[in-house]
Order: sequence, then C-alpha cells, then structure tokens
Amino acid sequence: MKIRKPILLALLLTYASSMTPTIRAQEAANTMATHRFNLMPVPALVQFQPGRLPISDTFSVATKGYSDDRLRAGISRIIKRLEGRIGLTLPSGLATDESGAALVVQSGEPGQAIPSVAENESYSLEVSDKQARLVAPTVVGALRGLETLLQLVESDRDGYYLPGVKIQDQPRFPWRGLLIDVGRHYEPLEVFKRNLDAMAAVKLNVLHWHLTEDQGFRVESKKFPKLHLMGSDGLYYTQDQVREIIAYARERGIRVVPEFDIPGHSTSWLVGYPELGSAPGPYQIERHAGIFEPALDPSREQVYKFLDGFLGEMASLFPDAYMHIGGDENEGKQWDRNPQIQAFMKEKGIKDNHALQAYFNQRLLKILQKHGKKMIGWDEILQPDLPRDAVIQSWRGPAALAEAAKRGYDGILSAGYYIDLIYPAAQHYRADPIPADSTLTSEEAKHVLGGEATMWGEYVSPETIDSRIWPRTAAIAERLWSPRTINDTEDMYRRLALISVQLEELGLTHEKNFSMLLRRLVGSKEIGPLATLASVMEPVKQYNRGQMRPATMLSPLTGLVDAARPDSDAARRFATMVDGLLSDAPRFQLYAESIRNTLTEWRDAGLALDPLIDQCPGLHEAKPLAKDLSESGVAGLEAMSYLSAGLAPTSEWRDARLARLDEATKPKAALEFAIIPSVRQLVIAAAELLQLKSTTPAEWKKRVTTLASPATK
Amino acid sequence: MKIRKPILLALLLTYASSMTPTIRAQEAANTMATHRFNLMPVPALVQFQPGRLPISDTFSVATKGYSDDRLRAGISRIIKRLEGRIGLTLPSGLATDESGAALVVQSGEPGQAIPSVAENESYSLEVSDKQARLVAPTVVGALRGLETLLQLVESDRDGYYLPGVKIQDQPRFPWRGLLIDVGRHYEPLEVFKRNLDAMAAVKLNVLHWHLTEDQGFRVESKKFPKLHLMGSDGLYYTQDQVREIIAYARERGIRVVPEFDIPGHSTSWLVGYPELGSAPGPYQIERHAGIFEPALDPSREQVYKFLDGFLGEMASLFPDAYMHIGGDENEGKQWDRNPQIQAFMKEKGIKDNHALQAYFNQRLLKILQKHGKKMIGWDEILQPDLPRDAVIQSWRGPAALAEAAKRGYDGILSAGYYIDLIYPAAQHYRADPIPADSTLTSEEAKHVLGGEATMWGEYVSPETIDSRIWPRTAAIAERLWSPRTINDTEDMYRRLALISVQLEELGLTHEKNFSMLLRRLVGSKEIGPLATLASVMEPVKQYNRGQMRPATMLSPLTGLVDAARPDSDAARRFATMVDGLLSDAPRFQLYAESIRNTLTEWRDAGLALDPLIDQCPGLHEAKPLAKDLSESGVAGLEAMSYLSAGLAPTSEWRDARLARLDEATKPKAALEFAIIPSVRQLVIAAAELLQLKSTTPAEWKKRVTTLASPATK
Repeated sequence: MKIRKPILLALLLTYASSMTPTIRAQEAANTMATHRFNLMPVPALVQFQPGRLPISDTFSVATKGYSDDRLRAGISRIIKRLEGRIGLTLPSGLATDESGAALVVQSGEPGQAIPSVAENESYSLEVSDKQARLVAPTVVGALRGLETLLQLVESDRDGYYLPGVKIQDQPRFPWRGLLIDVGRHYEPLEVFKRNLDAMAAVKLNVLHWHLTEDQGFRVESKKFPKLHLMGSDGLYYTQDQVREIIAYARERGIRVVPEFDIPGHSTSWLVGYPELGSAPGPYQIERHAGIFEPALDPSREQVYKFLDGFLGEMASLFPDAYMHIGGDENEGKQWDRNPQIQAFMKEKGIKDNHALQAYFNQRLLKILQKHGKKMIGWDEILQPDLPRDAVIQSWRGPAALAEAAKRGYDGILSAGYYIDLIYPAAQHYRADPIPADSTLTSEEAKHVLGGEATMWGEYVSPETIDSRIWPRTAAIAERLWSPRTINDTEDMYRRLALISVQLEELGLTHEKNFSMLLRRLVGSKEIGPLATLASVMEPVKQYNRGQMRPATMLSPLTGLVDAARPDSDAARRFATMVDGLLSDAPRFQLYAESIRNTLTEWRDAGLALDPLIDQCPGLHEAKPLAKDLSESGVAGLEAMSYLSAGLAPTSEWRDARLARLDEATKPKAALEFAIIPSVRQLVIAAAELLQLKSTTPAEWKKRVTTLASPATK
Repeated sequence: MKIRKPILLALLLTYASSMTPTIRAQEAANTMATHRFNLMPVPALVQFQPGRLPISDTFSVATKGYSDDRLRAGISRIIKRLEGRIGLTLPSGLATDESGAALVVQSGEPGQAIPSVAENESYSLEVSDKQARLVAPTVVGALRGLETLLQLVESDRDGYYLPGVKIQDQPRFPWRGLLIDVGRHYEPLEVFKRNLDAMAAVKLNVLHWHLTEDQGFRVESKKFPKLHLMGSDGLYYTQDQVREIIAYARERGIRVVPEFDIPGHSTSWLVGYPELGSAPGPYQIERHAGIFEPALDPSREQVYKFLDGFLGEMASLFPDAYMHIGGDENEGKQWDRNPQIQAFMKEKGIKDNHALQAYFNQRLLKILQKHGKKMIGWDEILQPDLPRDAVIQSWRGPAALAEAAKRGYDGILSAGYYIDLIYPAAQHYRADPIPADSTLTSEEAKHVLGGEATMWGEYVSPETIDSRIWPRTAAIAERLWSPRTINDTEDMYRRLALISVQLEELGLTHEKNFSMLLRRLVGSKEIGPLATLASVMEPVKQYNRGQMRPATMLSPLTGLVDAARPDSDAARRFATMVDGLLSDAPRFQLYAESIRNTLTEWRDAGLALDPLIDQCPGLHEAKPLAKDLSESGVAGLEAMSYLSAGLAPTSEWRDARLARLDEATKPKAALEFAIIPSVRQLVIAAAELLQLKSTTPAEWKKRVTTLASPATK
C-alpha cells in the first residue's frame, strides 16, 4: 500500500532561497517524503529505496574505522531502546564480523575533546535488504545517525524493519540549544539527564545552563561558598554534579554553556556578598517573578576582583569555549540612586546606565579573556567595543540578529523560541534564524549560528518541566537542523505525535504526568471528566499567568494549569474535523458524528465536574471552566442540529450563543479554552445557513471562517 | 452525612487473641472507623472527635522539646507534599510561637544514631478545632506521626482540613521490611530514593538490599574490585552511593540491611575470583533465572580469608547491626563433584551437604562476629549450633517461624509476602507472622520480629518495579504495623486505592507507567482498546512467566505482561457488580446497565485490537487474548439477555460458552484474564434460571457461585 519511489529531497536545498511555483511542487514531494517517514528533524537529504532490512533477534552491530567508548556506549543505548520498543532480545556486545552484521557503524575520528561549535555532525546512512551502513567523519556524527536509525524503525504484519533508504545529513545551523533556567526553580540531576537524552534524540547540541538568578544561585563555588550556601536554600549543584552533567552531555555530543547572569538578575549573589551590590543591603533570596533592582556595582574594583576569582573558578569547571554573562534586564535603578556610582560615572565620562553597563561588560570581557573564554550574552551586550568573537543571543528577533551579523557578530536566535510563553509548536516552528526574506549575504549569514529554546523557570517543577519542553522543542530542533523548506505544519504535528511517544523511552514525563497531576487534584484514579476538561485547555500565554494566579517561587506547581499542556491535541483534532465539516457544505456529513460525540462529551463532562469540584477545594477555581465547557458543548450541539436539518437559527440564538462563547473565551484559573474558535465556527455556520443558497460552498465557508475569526467578532 | 461518633478502636487490641462474637461487633465498629478515615496502616488506637482544623495558607508548624535536622527536614517534606496536594502556599520555615501554630510537633529525643530494631516508633496525635499536636518520644516516632497526619487530610466544599481525632499509635512488629533484589536487574539510585519515600509513607522501616546474585554483583569492593568490575556489567553502586542511600534511609527512620548471598547464588563473585568456587571455572555472569550450581568452596581456608576481608569491608560500609548472608537454595552439586571437598568432609566427619553448609555458616558467623555483626539468613541457616542472636528469615511460613521462636530464635516472615509471585494484595494481607491460631506463648511471640515483602528482581526494570511493589506492599505494611484485627479486605482495597494515588506524590511510577508502556507498544498515544485489555489482565502467577515467555536478564521488560499489573482493579470492580446483580435475583437489575456497558466495551475492544495488533509485531502474542476478551464480552452479554428476559438458555449454549471461557482461562503471552470467574458466574446464572423457581434467591445464588467456581467446573 505504501508507495516507495526514490524522491530526492536534496533538490529542495538548491532552490531554497526563493518561493517559486517550482518550489511548491518540490514541497509537495517533500511532504510526501516526510509522510512516508517519521523522521524529526528531517534530514538534509533523503532518498527512498525499495527493499527493507528486517530486525530480528539476530540484528547485530559492528563498528569499522575509529571506535571508542563514547561510540560503543552510544550504540549500546540505541540498541537498548530498540529492544525496548520491539520487545526482542538482540545480540549483546558488538559483532566481530563486519560483513555479517545487520548494522555497520563507520566512524573516522573521535570528534572534539571538548564539544564545540566546529564539531562535524554530518553522517550518511544507507539501508538495503542486506545491511544498514552508517558512515560519519566523527563519532558525534555517528551518534546523530544512530538517532535517525532508531526513528526509521517501522513495522507491519511481518515484523519490525528498517526501510530501504539513502540519507545524507548535516545540520543547517551548528548551535542548536535548549536553555534551562534553574535559578527560579531548582531541577534535580535526573531532570537534566533525561532532557539531555531527549535533546540528543532530536539532535540538539547545546545545553544552556542558566545557573544564577535573583531567585537562586545554583552552583557550588569553593572560592566564594556563601554564594551557593546562602543564595540557594540548599538547592544547588555540587561541582562533582556539574562535572557529571558535562560528561553526560559530552557522551551525547552536547555542549554545556553556563550562564552567570550579571550585573542584574543577581539578588541571590548579594545575599552572601552584599558588598558587591549597588545598594547596601541586606539582601534576601527573591521569591517573586519579575525584574528586580539589585545589580552588581560596576564602580568598585572589588567587584571585578570577585568576578575574576569566581569566573576563573567557573572557567575551569566548565570546559566550553563560551561563557554566558547574561546582561539582560538591568534597569539600573540602584545605580541611579547610588551617589558613589554617579560620581564614578561623572569621573569616567560615562553618560548613562547603558554606557555604564558597556563599561562593566568591557571589564568582564577582559576577565573572560584572561580565563580563556569567549563571551556570550543577550542583545544588551552588543556595544561599540564588543570584540568580534562574542556571541549575541537575541531575544529581540531575527532582525536584531541580522544587524549584528552585518556588523560581523555571531548570533543565535531565541526570540520565537520562548517555550515558557506557552505558544503552540506551530508558532515556534515558523520562527527562523535566517528567514526566507533575509537580506544577509551568504558570508554574513554564516554569523547566524543557530538558536536556542528557552525554558525559563518561573512556573516549572521537576514534575512539569518536561511537558513545557516536550514535545514542542522537537519542532524547534527541526527548524534548527533541517532545511528551511521543511515547513509543512500539519506534517510536523503528525511526526511530533510519534516522536513524543518515542521520547517517553528516555524517561520523560511530559505525557504521563498529565493524568498523574489530575489524580492528585481529585485524590483518586477516576479523573474522566477532569481529563476531558484539561485536554481542551491550555495555560494562558505570555506572562499572564503571574497576574491571573499570583504565586511565589515557593508555591506548589500542582494546579490544573500545571497539568494542562501548551498545545492541545484535542483542540487541534476538533478544529480539523470542523474544517472538514464546513468544507462538506451543504451536506455537513463529514466528521459530523465524531463532532457530535465530542461536543456531547464536553457537555456531559462539564456537568459531571460540578459535584467533583465541590469536593476538591484545589479545583474550586475550575468551577466556571466546567460551566464554560458544558455550554460550549451545548452551543456546538445546537449548531450541529441546525446544520444537519438545514434550518437557520434565529439571530437571537446566534447572539446569545456568541455572547456565551465570548464569556468562555476569557481566561480563568490561568487557563484558556483552545476549542472556542472551532465552536464559534459552528455557531456562525448555522447562523449563515441561508447565505449558502446564494453563493458557492467554498465562498460560503470562507465567509464563515472570516466572520468567526476573533478579529471580526 | 458522615457520622462522627467517638469510636474506640483500642478495645480491639484487648480482645485480639480470640475470635468471639463480641469481637465481630468490634470489627464492625472497626470497619466503620476505617471507612471514616483513610489511614493505612490503621493506627493501633483511633478515637474520633467532633470538630475540624481547617488548613489555610496560614497553616504553620512549630516544634517543641527535642528538635534536629532530621525532624526539620521531615516536617519540611510533609509540608511540601501537603502544599502540592492542596495547592496552597504555606508559611515557609517553622513558627516560633508554639501557641499560634496549627501543628505542634513535640519530640523527646533524637532516636537511635544507627536505626535499629529497638527504635521507639510510637507517637500520639491529637487534632482539635484549634491545633494539631503530635507527641513522640523520638524523632522517628514523630516522622511516623507526620505521615499519619498527611493521610488524615480531608476536604469538602469549605476547604481542606484535619478532622478531630485522637490517635495513639505504635507498630505491632518492630521489623517491617521490603527486600529489593538488584542482583537480577540493577535499579538506579532514584528507584531506591522514591521507594524509600514510599516505605516511610506506609511506615515500613527496613530496606533489605539484596546486593549479590548469580546474575550480578552490585556493590563496589575496594579490597576486591574484580567482584564489581567483572561481576556487574558496570552496573553497581559505588560506596559513596551506598552511603547516600543509607543516609537517605536513616533520614526517614529506615534501616538498610545488606545481603550477600552465599555459598550458593554466587556465580557473579566467581567471574573475577574463580578460585573461590567449588569447580575450576572460568565463570560468566549468569543470564538466566533459576537455581544454579556455582557455590563457594567451604573446604578452603582461602575462601574464609577472602570473606573475612570482604565482609569486613562491608561491615564498615553498612552500619546496621545485622548482615544477611543468604544461605538459600544451594543444592551442592558442585560440592558433590569436587574430590577435594569430598575428602574434606570425610576428614572432618561432615556427613552431608546440609552439614557442610552448617560448617560454612559456623565459620561465617565467626567472621561476622569479628566484625561486630549479627547474622540473618534464610530458613536454611537454622542449624543446631546457630547462636541465639541470629535472625531467621522464613520463606517457608509462620509454622517454621514459630518453631524457631520456640527454640529461642528471632525470625521474620517472608512467606506470603513474595510480591514477585504476582498475587493480589488480599492474599498478602491474610498472611500473618503470628496467625490467630498461633500456639506461641507471649514470651515466644516476641521472637517473631515482623516480616518482609520480597521484590525478587528477575522480571523488573526501573520502569516496572514500582508497579510490582506498589500499591500491594502498602497492604503488607498494614499487616505488619496494625493490630491483627484490622482485616477487612474490602476496606483495605478502598483505602489502598486512595493511598496508591498519594504514593504518586513521591515520584512512584506504578500507575503512570501503565499507559506509557502501552503507548510504546503501539507507538502512539491512542491506546484505548489495548488499555481495556491490559486492565483486565494480570501477569501469570508464581514462577510461570519464565516458562511461558522465555527471557534472559538482558531481555527487554516492555511487553504487554510488563504493562499489566498484579491486581486488576477493573476485574475486582466487575466481580463486585456481578455479585450485586446475582443478589438481586430474580430481578437482575442491580448494576445491570454498568455490567452491560463493561461487557460491550470488552467485546468492542477485542474487535478493535485485531488491526492494531497486526501493525505491532510486539503485540502479536496478544492476538488470542483479544479474541478471548471479545468472546468473553459476547458470552456475558448473551447471559445478561437471558437473565433480564428471565428466559433460560439451552444446555448447548451453556456448554459452548463455558468451553469458550475455559479456553480463555488458559494463560497466553504470560498473561491471564482476571475477569473469567465473573463471566462464568453470569453464564451459569443464566443456565440455572429455571432453578430459581424452586428455591430461595439466596440459595440459588449460592448454587450458582458453587457451580461457577473453578473447583467444580
């Protein structure tokens, strides 16, 4: 049934810079190709082949060329995951006979001792009826190829197999990162380990470890122990643990870039060392989210001496070539109020706080250089004297990045990848470090190194962080690895669903903690109606949660908003069905039964929730949501009755229902419904039934969609 | 609605030694009492009080009397779990003003530096409208009481609260353990941490760490590094990690008793040190389950010198007073074949292998004594010369234990608590170290120290071990802590369901990995019909899995049998409904609709599974199960039709359906249906409809139940 024609994706790359009709045809092929396979990120070049390599319990692996412990451990991990997935016991250890092995992994050299931005991650993979051959110049390339191999595994009645394929793959960008902020909430080592495994699975290669914040100083300093002892509530990483994580990351070809955010975001530093601050103190660990005043004092030599000592210590602990110094969101209020600092500025001819921070960064840069590190920081560090080997991490956007590139600075994009803002994967997927309309020359474009998803930690606990990172970050990983032309959102979601299940093999809890958190809320295994509600809700976007549901960093993260996930599958499925139904005008049969069942489930779940919520004070905030859900179900069901009977409702009905839906659109308990736009479409469609007689179904559907869109309501 | 009358459970204890009608009345009260509260284990004495103590965001805790880091950390953990459960941010840190605190924890002394069998774990807890007061002679008692407090939390429309109560509590037995075998499968540290937390939650106090087996030597020896380096595939605990676990356990008032199983079960020792064996070797790590020949050579002085060195090293690593030397299942085949050993026996006048092992144990005992340890071992170590301070762990049963007690030996029961045999919790709940019919004097009874659940590790991975241990082990914990008269199985299951959800707060995966493993099997989130199947199946009991589904210790543990759980809730619920329906003869209305819905779900799930299984080779083994499920549903639905119509079926129908159910009863894929007895009841009931006219409904139901029981089929 499945078609296996050789389709060359590579061609796409050639044409990638313009959007001509020819490209559209190629994209159709591309979509077919990715439909055929379940790879994420999609490789640079995939050529389908006839044939298949069965995976039986004799499936053995041999290495050829260079081989080391890292490669062997990587093979062993892949085989263990493969065994777990297919339920077979495969031969243990490596085969000695290359020709008889099912998989041959051929590597050229070890890769860099300290993983770097120059690492060669390319590989080629060829699967025939006889053998799978993975060839890579470095062990890191081989590790990337092994992850692709595992994603290739398919099955049918005859068993598991690898399909015939030729893959040539390398990343579009060399810097593909995930920032994890442990300043706001500490995350134990196992969170890092399973997330590093997941990063490797989708070919991310930089863990950006945001280690210090107003709310916590999370790394042990032997030189200045009051930093971690007084600034962390005892929740910090020992240097041995840091080394353990760095080694774990390197095993997977992943860099670890530490961030010490200064001069702002530094309250936790000042708890133990108030003399570094720009106001006298004393300081306490900050418990709230936000931007705070404390900042290091750039006018005092003692501060630079301290930083020299501390960053020197960290420079030997973290082997990566880069050290991130933050630099963001310092409003300089403490500076304004400090007469000594003001005198210092006058004396040095520093005209404003902006320039003062530039001065601070200059001094900082010398310290980093002394300790052999290159500087990376947020947009704010881009000052006239910044040396050309610094890297700008942009929360502002591709334009800021392009501007930096034109001035010769390397940069990485984070705007668009702020996964803590709870946007759907599709939105992140569209963000591109070098968008199609970029005016950068190819030389300038080389300065755009890649991007990083940012998991800011205000509202994540060890129980919820996985569901905030995954599976959405896999879509970002694809954006950073795959050709720009791989951009079919629907197919991305199809593959994301598969990859999401595979990520669970690594111990991630993004899927399984959903029900667990609901069980805790109701104190019982029976979560049926609550799960129905939670599955169509999403936490509020942007930074609205803090306003709607005030909390400190010490508050529990176990509410309904913490169980709900950023990108409702159920709502997306419902939207697809409604779209199909409206395309089926004037019959309105397509998906009609499923839509009715879903609406009925919502109506009933909403009603069933009422007594449950009464018994669970932790759910009281969800009471209006239950009513919204129920009435959205009713509105949809009524609309469906009109549509199927071909009878237009009164305008009173229309107005009452839309008003009710408007009410349901308002976020409550820091949650919002992801289904209201689709229900609105049904209501508008019913109300517009009469129009259907005087226009084409396609025109009519367009009209309904326009009328239903929030902008025109 | 809920009745709050002071009911004194304590009286039960006074009468506990005989089963008179008076006691039955008390038991009814007892049942009421435990129905009112959700405690597990049930305290020795619970007296209900009017009133309640609301839990708001001002709920503060103060300590009184002795206080230390262990107590403060324990309070902090409880408060954190409480916050997570109720969704409120409670005051951080301890209150300074005792009178204003919502909870006062008063402790008398630190408890033992090294937790021991003599630890005082008693506490009293009183909750009034004004305050909760927990008073305990030791910090360990206070920790036990804090767990009770957390289980007391209830809620209604007005919020969360602690109900008014007076509790006086202490354990029935001082040794309440869980054995975890890491020899067969290594379990990472986090498995131990979360299971230690769970043990503390149900007041277990001994982690029995079965560290060495034919299949793996899991502890680092600095003196004899070839033990762990060659005997473990690299999967062992460093001494630092061991100390970390011991400290983690002590924080929770839990002892850690290490087991080094010799002279048998020792293949992994011999891989690195073949010269210790009774046959020349070489040896390889055993990959299969079973009883194997390799055994230490009791005739060579070198062996004792080695053991002196090794056990001496372990004696300083593990502070507990006891060291477990295993001693089980050595069949002596290597001894029989070794001429030197035979000559040694002749020379020493040792008449058989039994006596030779006694000689070995005598030597071992001296080594343990030299290093300040008391010996504990399995039944086999009970030899004439065994000193009186040794402890017998009985896999044989209470009778063997009683015999040892009469001879003055301490003992703990494990027979009846073999959780790896996959029996339902009810069965373990019935096993009692000192059964009601015990003839031990009260002096002799003191020798029975308690019991241990045994998690033998042949078929558990880090992903599945929690579901094999929990929630069933909570029922065993109750048996070992609560008065013997607490024995209402139905109420145990009611509370077990609640406790099971609470245990998830500690990170346990017993519930959430069920769906996760099913998702892996189908490679998708959509597991509906497979979950229906798996929820009514249980892994085969006893040691039948190995025969039915051959595997080695290297095989993946990711099959349907690994997802299925030992004690099907769904089957138990169905049995209750069928029982209700048959009690409602001749109307057959009670639960009829739910039963029909359930049967329909089975029928449909079985049919839906067919195409799914075809696509998933890992599920092929489940194909006959899907058919069994479907046809059981059909048989039940047909029986329901006869019953509701009051029409008796033909005997052909009866015979055909019963024959089909007999087929379904046969285990497949190492799984068995837990629902067949109930479906058989329905079929027999339909077939016996005519009998209903000539007898009373009660007599008729009895007849149906008898006819349906497997013994009479």
